[in-house]
Amino acid sequence: MKLRVGIIGAGPSGMAQLRAFESARQKGAEIPEIMCFEKQDDWGGQWNSSWRTGLDAHGEPVHSSMYRHLWSNGPKECLEFSDYSFDEHFGRPISSFPPRAVLFDYIKGRVEKSDVRKYVTFNTAARFVSYDEGTQEFTLTVEDLPTGTTQTHVFDKLVVATGHFSVPAAPAFDGIAGFPGEVLHAHDFRGAERFAGKRVLLIGSSYSAEDIGMQAHKMGARSVTFSYRSAPMGFDWPENTVERPLVTHFDGTCAHFSDGTRGDFDAVVLCTGYQHKYPFLPGELSLKSKNVLYPANLFKGVVWQQNTNLFYLGAQDQYYTFNMFDAQAWFARDVMTGVIELPSPEERAADIQAWLDRQAALPGHDAEADFQSDYVRELIDATDYPPFDLDAVSALLKTWMRDKESDILGYRDTVHRSVVTGTLAARHHTRWLNAMDDSLERYLNGPSQDVDTGTLAAVTGALAAR
Amino acid sequence: MKLRVGIIGAGPSGMAQLRAFESARQKGAEIPEIMCFEKQDDWGGQWNSSWRTGLDAHGEPVHSSMYRHLWSNGPKECLEFSDYSFDEHFGRPISSFPPRAVLFDYIKGRVEKSDVRKYVTFNTAARFVSYDEGTQEFTLTVEDLPTGTTQTHVFDKLVVATGHFSVPAAPAFDGIAGFPGEVLHAHDFRGAERFAGKRVLLIGSSYSAEDIGMQAHKMGARSVTFSYRSAPMGFDWPENTVERPLVTHFDGTCAHFSDGTRGDFDAVVLCTGYQHKYPFLPGELSLKSKNVLYPANLFKGVVWQQNTNLFYLGAQDQYYTFNMFDAQAWFARDVMTGVIELPSPEERAADIQAWLDRQAALPGHDAEADFQSDYVRELIDATDYPPFDLDAVSALLKTWMRDKESDILGYRDTVHRSVVTGTLAARHHTRWLNAMDDSLERYLNGPSQDVDTGTLAAVTGALAAR
Repeated sequence: MKLRVGIIGAGPSGMAQLRAFESARQKGAEIPEIMCFEKQDDWGGQWNSSWRTGLDAHGEPVHSSMYRHLWSNGPKECLEFSDYSFDEHFGRPISSFPPRAVLFDYIKGRVEKSDVRKYVTFNTAARFVSYDEGTQEFTLTVEDLPTGTTQTHVFDKLVVATGHFSVPAAPAFDGIAGFPGEVLHAHDFRGAERFAGKRVLLIGSSYSAEDIGMQAHKMGARSVTFSYRSAPMGFDWPENTVERPLVTHFDGTCAHFSDGTRGDFDAVVLCTGYQHKYPFLPGELSLKSKNVLYPANLFKGVVWQQNTNLFYLGAQDQYYTFNMFDAQAWFARDVMTGVIELPSPEERAADIQAWLDRQAALPGHDAEADFQSDYVRELIDATDYPPFDLDAVSALLKTWMRDKESDILGYRDTVHRSVVTGTLAARHHTRWLNAMDDSLERYLNGPSQDVDTGTLAAVTGALAAR
Repeated sequence: MKLRVGIIGAGPSGMAQLRAFESARQKGAEIPEIMCFEKQDDWGGQWNSSWRTGLDAHGEPVHSSMYRHLWSNGPKECLEFSDYSFDEHFGRPISSFPPRAVLFDYIKGRVEKSDVRKYVTFNTAARFVSYDEGTQEFTLTVEDLPTGTTQTHVFDKLVVATGHFSVPAAPAFDGIAGFPGEVLHAHDFRGAERFAGKRVLLIGSSYSAEDIGMQAHKMGARSVTFSYRSAPMGFDWPENTVERPLVTHFDGTCAHFSDGTRGDFDAVVLCTGYQHKYPFLPGELSLKSKNVLYPANLFKGVVWQQNTNLFYLGAQDQYYTFNMFDAQAWFARDVMTGVIELPSPEERAADIQAWLDRQAALPGHDAEADFQSDYVRELIDATDYPPFDLDAVSALLKTWMRDKESDILGYRDTVHRSVVTGTLAARHHTRWLNAMDDSLERYLNGPSQDVDTGTLAAVTGALAAR
């Protein structure tokens, strides 16, 4: 009987797994029976964004945490597929920090070129998994969301590709229940236009806080205040932007901070991160982890240590994204098909521990970038995924971090060179701070006077004029 | 072996089921082994409200759809427990339309008096149910949310008491993804203070739209616009409140209606109802229903027709609430324990069909109230639940509907007489329109000059003064 592989989720990681098998098939390998289940009506995961918040049309938690006017916050040259370049997709150089729709188009282009959509069952949620130690089989129950009917499928290998930036982690703060303004988690943020003229408080000090805060600035917020738990981000913020330590409590519209300062706010955005959550898995198969570069319990960051028929893709924090998911998917594929033979449990444990030890000693962001470069390198070296210059990517990650430090509002206007094709990115027609149309069409077709200089006023004017 | 009963949910329905068994125990009956699972950290279901929206602290969908300043929209005399009166709980007459915290206190009072909290496992979500036709047993997998560990339990009878006003139904509208203001479903509405000075659009024409719209009015919205699909609500609305037919599309801040009118808005609240959703049940055990007074497939609105070991409480639309859940729970109890013998499948089907036929012919709201009164009567007549004057409740429901028609902002200031104790409700110390503190303390302790007349300015002034 053919090997049966189940994949949960058709976001970037699930798409990478499909592409990994397709790549093997094109090279003449016999590939397993594959079924991929996606709860949304299209693939793309995070990149398939929605105006909805909370629960979706079928009452499932909304997956995507993305929003209008989201432009890549890292250079596209750090995430480029080495088997499908930006040049191949767009036929010309594009900028280094494209908006969501452009990256979504790119990742779809690769899998549309392959014939892999047939493996995906859409509008279908994973409900529950059981594993039979005797037969070494997974039984996966899925629900067809439009009809509510459930079906079970049996697999030899199971790939969890549901991501870990979809389920909010949101601490409570004293008095927040009485805060009369808007309170939302970054996951439910859909656009900053409505913050025009408002005093916005962002609790958190990572990517979400930074970007949503600067979205608010871009859309005309009256003030932007960040509240950090451990340390300020310390960027060279624009005017009316400040960092404060952690909120101790709210009193009506007033937030009190641990340094004794306080301020009145109109809106609070909890940029307090996400949870690893796999409600369809029994506890013993479910990864519990903080958002770290190397979660415990996963050999090569992919293979579940206690049950090597189970695989997690993209479960770590990410300097690398799409190309790391590829490296993981190629590795998982070769483990599943026996091309790669797994070492003993003890050897795997030692390998995991060595990575954990190195992670524990990481001195800072530059070292973290190198750490993940080395991790991706190890995966790529083990498979036939087309190699690319990881040292160059690591160097670019460090440049990017410097660029952000020197110009938080302008770093997206820099251009970088592809490590896959050598192409230098094109300078975008409009600076990020002035770009008010994040559509694929506007991105590719050049600036429109009435759109790119007029939209801010058109969109936010009506909101502010009150 | 003792009968094993599993109850999913410790909201009003689950609490009623616990109380039903406790009542039997107090009368000397031997009661089953009972386990009740509640995903929240306290009981009360909807009434255990949260400032959170979307997903909760454990990443589970937030259950409660309630909000600050929610006062009962129906007379408390229509929902009073006949075995635990408002007089018994509060020791004095209270008003007919108390705020959420007061009703929450009341329903907790009854179960705290009984010794039933020991049956409830909190912070525990139902993950998946399977049913073995051979052994006639349910296997229920639950997850302890703080640790992520899963456990399975086996039951002879399973009670689904998870409610059906928690999972939003939200249609899409053309252009809504580009609406720059706030868009939320009524489920995620937590208070109208932030609508002060704003133009609010409510899509829907049932209780949520009506109440959230009037909350917005109360908190100083610049305008309130309702958009209906079938028919306007037609109440005698206050100034700056209008009803329009359905939105055809959005264009920026502008909503276009099907009658050709349009308007600019700052916020959109989708008051478009809720879904029956039971993600923990296999399709063949999962109730699919609109929000109707008599869902198909449930004998006496409670017993799953294809598997009479499965029970649903509170699965119907509700003129009656707490006391109807009681009647259902008492009935379910007596079916489970064999005190009530079920008729044949054919007889049950005929009984269901008779109710469905009557439902299909209902001419209007008054007849609906009578319909549900008759339904509750049938359940009560079959058990030892203390009878009460259902005709009087039906008459009161009709009076209440007339009161709303004549004064949508003032109907909550009327007082009614208990059908359980005969007590006439007390007139509340503050008219609903002026009541700006919905706490139990303020409700019981009388008006506070600085709170009740000053809060509107204090709370919304900061928001409006921009």
